[in-house]
Amino acid sequence: MLKLYVSPGSCSLAAHIALEEAGADYVAEKVELAKGAQHQPDFLAINPKARVPALATDRGILTENPAILAYIAQTHPGSGLAPLDDAFAFGRIQSFNAYLASTVHVAHAHRPRGSRWADDPAALEAMKLKVPKNMADCFELIETTMFAGPWVMGDQYTIADPYLFTIASWLESDGVDPARFPKVLDHRNRMAERPAVKAVLAWLKG
Amino acid sequence: MLKLYVSPGSCSLAAHIALEEAGADYVAEKVELAKGAQHQPDFLAINPKARVPALATDRGILTENPAILAYIAQTHPGSGLAPLDDAFAFGRIQSFNAYLASTVHVAHAHRPRGSRWADDPAALEAMKLKVPKNMADCFELIETTMFAGPWVMGDQYTIADPYLFTIASWLESDGVDPARFPKVLDHRNRMAERPAVKAVLAWLKG
Repeated sequence: MLKLYVSPGSCSLAAHIALEEAGADYVAEKVELAKGAQHQPDFLAINPKARVPALATDRGILTENPAILAYIAQTHPGSGLAPLDDAFAFGRIQSFNAYLASTVHVAHAHRPRGSRWADDPAALEAMKLKVPKNMADCFELIETTMFAGPWVMGDQYTIADPYLFTIASWLESDGVDPARFPKVLDHRNRMAERPAVKAVLAWLKG
Repeated sequence: MLKLYVSPGSCSLAAHIALEEAGADYVAEKVELAKGAQHQPDFLAINPKARVPALATDRGILTENPAILAYIAQTHPGSGLAPLDDAFAFGRIQSFNAYLASTVHVAHAHRPRGSRWADDPAALEAMKLKVPKNMADCFELIETTMFAGPWVMGDQYTIADPYLFTIASWLESDGVDPARFPKVLDHRNRMAERPAVKAVLAWLKG
């Protein structure tokens, strides 16, 4: 059985929703980031990077959302979560997910986690100042050049959808009005109505 | 025919080497980042994110190294650049490449491109101060927990190898002595001797 290590409010939500959508045989376990559980030896043995998500499989651990999402799609081909026999279509999803991971999530992280990149308190404040613009610029690109509709990639719901939903849920806290991006906001609202999403969010609150 | 948009000294080197190793039918085109060519309309039509690498295929454009690298491996199965019939082994490569893209490359970028995340000149200096520690911490994790040897993933040379080579080549400029990481340094030296790597580096200098 798969085991996903998660934390409420974190990007692990993307992998968590994907497992639920895939009908995967899995359990989730909360890692209390606020209590520093990710830095304890038992979790560092699972992920030395001290981050969630981490997916324990019978072969070993996988980390990083783009990798975990592709793995879920590939190991649950019946779910239709990615076009597995079309390298270009698969690559488009991977391009989108890599952008979320290495640019959009990083833009967001400069608000709550600027201390990763500087120690000076004034520098952390300077980083926070730029987060609304950076997040808005990212979502402007998503809205105008990447989002096909009705789902991220078009007619087919894929592993790109829970990942966009997860990061789009941070817009207000990053000082961006999601109404500026009507396609993304409509997507977020439709995602929130999916049974898999409701089930995961209810479990995280429990 | 594939066309890869590259810039000397950038992370596009990873995809460039992978195409060469795969024996792909491709051409490369230099985008003069120093002259702002990535912000010109003709390049923005290729990649609205104004970044390299971008890979033009007969189906459209792919961006982001992890996506392009996986696409090259999947479309050149004879190259052996990734285990295509083993989702877990493929996922391990993707985990490694996603870490390079979203953590290690980002740690590096705070030296030359801190203005992405703050406008205050003092904040940019504060970011630069932390780059040597952050890069060293990343490579300590790679050296001790990720690098299997003799190649990143073990006996098989994969798409993880040119990507590690590319980012490891930035260590000195980021203020880190690569001798601290003997496995990574030995890998970098062996990579530099490969005909594909020599051919790409010679072309970029030409």
